[in-house]
Amino acid sequence: MNFDFKTPVNRKGTHSYKWDVEDHELPMWVADMDFKTAPAITQAILNRTHQDAFGYNIVPQSFYDSVAKWWKKRHHWDIDPKWVMFCSGVVPAISSIVRKMTQPQEHVIVLSPVYNIFYNSIINNNRIVVESKLNYQNETYSINFEDLEAKLSDPKSTLLIFCNPHNPIGKVWDKETLKKVGDLCIKHKVLIISDEIHCDLTHPEYTYTPMASISHDISQNTITCISPTKTFNLAGLQTSAIVVANETVRKQVHRGINTDEVAEPNTFAIQACEAAFNHGEPWLNELLMILQENRETLTQAITSAFSELKIIQSEATYLAWLDCSNITDDTQALCDYIRKETGLYLSAGHIFGGNGDQFIRWNYACPKTILEDGISRFIKALTHYQSNHT
Amino acid sequence: MNFDFKTPVNRKGTHSYKWDVEDHELPMWVADMDFKTAPAITQAILNRTHQDAFGYNIVPQSFYDSVAKWWKKRHHWDIDPKWVMFCSGVVPAISSIVRKMTQPQEHVIVLSPVYNIFYNSIINNNRIVVESKLNYQNETYSINFEDLEAKLSDPKSTLLIFCNPHNPIGKVWDKETLKKVGDLCIKHKVLIISDEIHCDLTHPEYTYTPMASISHDISQNTITCISPTKTFNLAGLQTSAIVVANETVRKQVHRGINTDEVAEPNTFAIQACEAAFNHGEPWLNELLMILQENRETLTQAITSAFSELKIIQSEATYLAWLDCSNITDDTQALCDYIRKETGLYLSAGHIFGGNGDQFIRWNYACPKTILEDGISRFIKALTHYQSNHT
Repeated sequence: MNFDFKTPVNRKGTHSYKWDVEDHELPMWVADMDFKTAPAITQAILNRTHQDAFGYNIVPQSFYDSVAKWWKKRHHWDIDPKWVMFCSGVVPAISSIVRKMTQPQEHVIVLSPVYNIFYNSIINNNRIVVESKLNYQNETYSINFEDLEAKLSDPKSTLLIFCNPHNPIGKVWDKETLKKVGDLCIKHKVLIISDEIHCDLTHPEYTYTPMASISHDISQNTITCISPTKTFNLAGLQTSAIVVANETVRKQVHRGINTDEVAEPNTFAIQACEAAFNHGEPWLNELLMILQENRETLTQAITSAFSELKIIQSEATYLAWLDCSNITDDTQALCDYIRKETGLYLSAGHIFGGNGDQFIRWNYACPKTILEDGISRFIKALTHYQSNHT
Repeated sequence: MNFDFKTPVNRKGTHSYKWDVEDHELPMWVADMDFKTAPAITQAILNRTHQDAFGYNIVPQSFYDSVAKWWKKRHHWDIDPKWVMFCSGVVPAISSIVRKMTQPQEHVIVLSPVYNIFYNSIINNNRIVVESKLNYQNETYSINFEDLEAKLSDPKSTLLIFCNPHNPIGKVWDKETLKKVGDLCIKHKVLIISDEIHCDLTHPEYTYTPMASISHDISQNTITCISPTKTFNLAGLQTSAIVVANETVRKQVHRGINTDEVAEPNTFAIQACEAAFNHGEPWLNELLMILQENRETLTQAITSAFSELKIIQSEATYLAWLDCSNITDDTQALCDYIRKETGLYLSAGHIFGGNGDQFIRWNYACPKTILEDGISRFIKALTHYQSNHT
């Protein structure tokens, strides 16, 4: 190992959203990692700081090139740098695209359970959420195509917000599924936003395929949102890219993000992104190994302690999705109990919709000592919970 | 002098918007200074960088307190920290407030010539710009109250975007004027946004008064936008505050900026703002002296070289407003000529509306050697221009 994934980073008192908790608490909820950032990124920030002036910025050609180069190298997808736009984040991008590309009261479809903030981007802008619930059988999720097509064919449906890899279930959608979804959207004239922010966290034995890479026609109907912020833990640096092959849609989205004031980079946004994509690969390759070890440690510990719990076989992300249906239909109450008893702070699944209320999402992206602390808190809490509830 | 206002900062090749020019060119246009940032701010950024994690952030109480403390100390205005909201910038705030607090096709009034981006925030959001042109007499601007009241009394008028100190004319509005404007807006039920971003750049012999400090009733009808970004040259750090005393309006604005995704601070936004307001005062006091020297140098040089030019007596900002009406009614053509002949890049005034097409805006916030270079380019260009145009 060339990089330090062992030393805990002290984030208390740093205005961290994740660590805005009581002293005795251990947050393993929001998708924000507790490793030191890749040194190349820290160095890029220091270099920029030493320029000693922090005025207005432009987006340089090198930003577009770094995005295109990374996707070609890592994911074999040829992005023309002209297709790329800077945006201050994937969520700002999605909210802006919802406003620009749909009208109030139109239906926006999501496949649930899915990233909870999608719901906010739809509801806050006075559009209607339509959930097509994923099938769940034998601890595996799949798309209910009959239900999805019924919803896509509704004349009020104008946008699908797709998630690939799919948060929180950790699914990397295969080419056949992507083609089927993409073709259905074309058939019913429903535009696709594909949030692919977790793609670089695909597990070593799986392959992520970008939705827009499936076919020319699908690329023309897809807006892809990508970013180094999840992979390299840079949410606070507010940097992301929107990739749109279709020229007309690109012009519309470009206008939207400018009107919405989310198209201008802060002093470090470009530098951090370029450092990640141009120099971050060795760090990422080690990170993926660490995450795999953590995943195995967590799965082994939890399933051997509690045979009634299942951890869904995941293909991407550093988020474990625990099926607690043998214990409760109300994981919010369970998570509240765990937090109160031991300070371990996990995400209750109901916020993701679908069958989420039977699940817990567990962020295991942290040094091993912290993970072990979390596991022992969980085992203690669940043991008490079960003796109190049986 | 304890701080370095002499050494030029090399900003070429740093993705600076201002310096995105040809090698031989000298940009003195956009309101972005060419001094080294206050060391306290650079240090705060370095301290935060060394925390080595850049995840999601919260806005801490210390942010609200630093804003309130600064305004009380510098401007004798008691802001309750509860009135303060974080926003990623004054322009994002204004655009979001336009969207939230007015309806499409309603009239938004500005006093022109005024900061050109106000027009974008209105037009981009499908509202109608209504210009109440400032009177201009004896090289002094004043409000045409008859015209303003006629426009405020139009039932379609719902918002005034006020600017205090007023960019680009450098006017600090006096208490009597503020009261008159504020009371007229109350009478006609027109909400006020007061952009006070230049307030800390009020010249030593003048006094800035916040619009919302005039009376309780006016404070209840005013949304004040403030920021350390102009004073301390931090535009790229994307940090600002919205101050709203009225609880109902505050709730609405809070919802608006959250829906519009401009309410979350980047990794350095809070730190830079707190460093500026808590530790930046000695630097600012020296800056104001340097700006005064530059202002005198510029005024002296230009008016002695060209008696037909007038530099408006300014009371705030580092922007000189040159009356070129004795030479041309089309300063865009003049600025193009100056830039082509000498590389000096100034702002043509027509973008600010009103009588701006007879003016040039000149940003003199730079080390003296650069200012002198700019002055000699200007004199050379204008001498040629006049010999070609007479």
